[in-house]
Amino acid sequence: MTVNLADVDRVRDYFLGLQDTICIGVETLDGKSSFRHDNWRRPEGGGGESRVLRDGEVFEQAGINFSHVTGASLPPAASARRPELSGRRFEAMGVSLVIHPQNPMVPTSHANVRFFVAHAENSEPVWWFGGGFDLTPYYPFHEDVLHWHQTARAACEPFGEDVYPRFKKWCDEYFYLRHRDETRSVGGLFFDDLNEWGFDSCFGFMQSVGDHYLDAYLPIVERRKDTTFGAEHREFQLYRRGRYVEFNLIYDRGTLFGLQSGGRTESILMSLPPLVRWEYGWQPRPGSAEDSLYTDYLRPRDWLAEAGK
Amino acid sequence: MTVNLADVDRVRDYFLGLQDTICIGVETLDGKSSFRHDNWRRPEGGGGESRVLRDGEVFEQAGINFSHVTGASLPPAASARRPELSGRRFEAMGVSLVIHPQNPMVPTSHANVRFFVAHAENSEPVWWFGGGFDLTPYYPFHEDVLHWHQTARAACEPFGEDVYPRFKKWCDEYFYLRHRDETRSVGGLFFDDLNEWGFDSCFGFMQSVGDHYLDAYLPIVERRKDTTFGAEHREFQLYRRGRYVEFNLIYDRGTLFGLQSGGRTESILMSLPPLVRWEYGWQPRPGSAEDSLYTDYLRPRDWLAEAGK
Repeated sequence: MTVNLADVDRVRDYFLGLQDTICIGVETLDGKSSFRHDNWRRPEGGGGESRVLRDGEVFEQAGINFSHVTGASLPPAASARRPELSGRRFEAMGVSLVIHPQNPMVPTSHANVRFFVAHAENSEPVWWFGGGFDLTPYYPFHEDVLHWHQTARAACEPFGEDVYPRFKKWCDEYFYLRHRDETRSVGGLFFDDLNEWGFDSCFGFMQSVGDHYLDAYLPIVERRKDTTFGAEHREFQLYRRGRYVEFNLIYDRGTLFGLQSGGRTESILMSLPPLVRWEYGWQPRPGSAEDSLYTDYLRPRDWLAEAGK
Repeated sequence: MTVNLADVDRVRDYFLGLQDTICIGVETLDGKSSFRHDNWRRPEGGGGESRVLRDGEVFEQAGINFSHVTGASLPPAASARRPELSGRRFEAMGVSLVIHPQNPMVPTSHANVRFFVAHAENSEPVWWFGGGFDLTPYYPFHEDVLHWHQTARAACEPFGEDVYPRFKKWCDEYFYLRHRDETRSVGGLFFDDLNEWGFDSCFGFMQSVGDHYLDAYLPIVERRKDTTFGAEHREFQLYRRGRYVEFNLIYDRGTLFGLQSGGRTESILMSLPPLVRWEYGWQPRPGSAEDSLYTDYLRPRDWLAEAGK
């Protein structure tokens, strides 16, 4: 289960290529705005490249970050499930992205793929992969959710029949706002601490997740981006974005890891939406489209089995 | 150092009266909108009354909450500094408020006063007071900051000369965004775990802090509420409100305590502003009013001594 420098380089090359591919896909679909690139270095070691597109025709904000950091002491957010690794010298790299569309009929989406190595004096380094993607609709369409999960399942299929259900369930559990008793999204995939299949298969799986993201998201954007909407839909989108902020600042492991490890704050918080509303005591009108989001979508469901797909 | 039921009732009566007084002061100054009252109960014990004013002439949102909760196990956010009390049966009550004005020339302000009792099987209950207030300007005025701190000092003076400097320093340290290296505000007072002066003096001090809040804030609001402002000032206000959200969801002990103890989410998060902006990589223009906020105001300063007050 050891890892060598050539492996680390292969993972890094994959991440850099993925960042490029996704940026091109997003920019092409947007057609108006383009990505600003910011390279940054971290005093404690490593750095990254942040890419942010703003005020596009389709996308209000898209942030697609690569980072590769080293540190003297693995922070708690990365080692909560593995206390024996806390405080070890570490290396972490990955691509993380969040896309906030203009049109409230187009869902927000997030994807992340990451690779960690924890070093120790008198033993082999411990490595693992993590990642996933989830879809956060405002005005959901059932066929979009099915497409999203079918693509997630396709990403998992070569690695075993149990992989999609396992990481789909983990996604529902992870992207959960306890203080609201709501899921953040209609789910997708989430995995962490993955090294049980050996390096090549774990790396292959992580690549499959990364490579399926655009296939999962762009067709949904294409289908919904020109849908007519009104001020009330925009208001609801801004309101629901508040939940995204709450999740990322209170619970999200990647955000907390970034802030705890002295990462670049502006890059970490590019996940936060450009404009957000909170409204005390707001409740959807029973039977409305907004109500259906809560009742039918923001809870764990076995989308594919229910639809006989 | 013990506390009896009559003491608890006196504290509760004070809190209920303070909530009324502050609501009347805010409503009167606003002149247009009024407070909506919501009573709530908590399944585990206790409850509260939330009062929120929205879309006022002067105030975009003002939330002034009373809560009194009991629980079987003191949550970590309340016992981080006193691990020996963690998990004890507890009682907590207080008034907590955040006021977000319409005009960017008027600062946001926050105040909180609270009382805790932790019970145990074979020993006397442990009690303590906490509280404070802090001022968060967007376009700061030096005379407003002096007035705020002079009022804070006046609240402390009867309790000893060292009280203001000690709790002023604690405020600067507490309301600090480590990931931004910025204070949240120009400070004020913050104290916690206070029981060292005996019950009556501690209670008296907490009342003095609560009673001085309107004197500290309303004159500033009066002075600035009719100042002309433009779209760029509003944009900066919305942007800076993002820091308020970041502080409250990442660091604030009251917010974390509330969410961890199963409090009423809508009441806890009424501290979040009604409308907020994030903008990747934004920097103030050197020498601008916005720049001065960062350079001159959002760092610990000994305001009164510097001004010879």
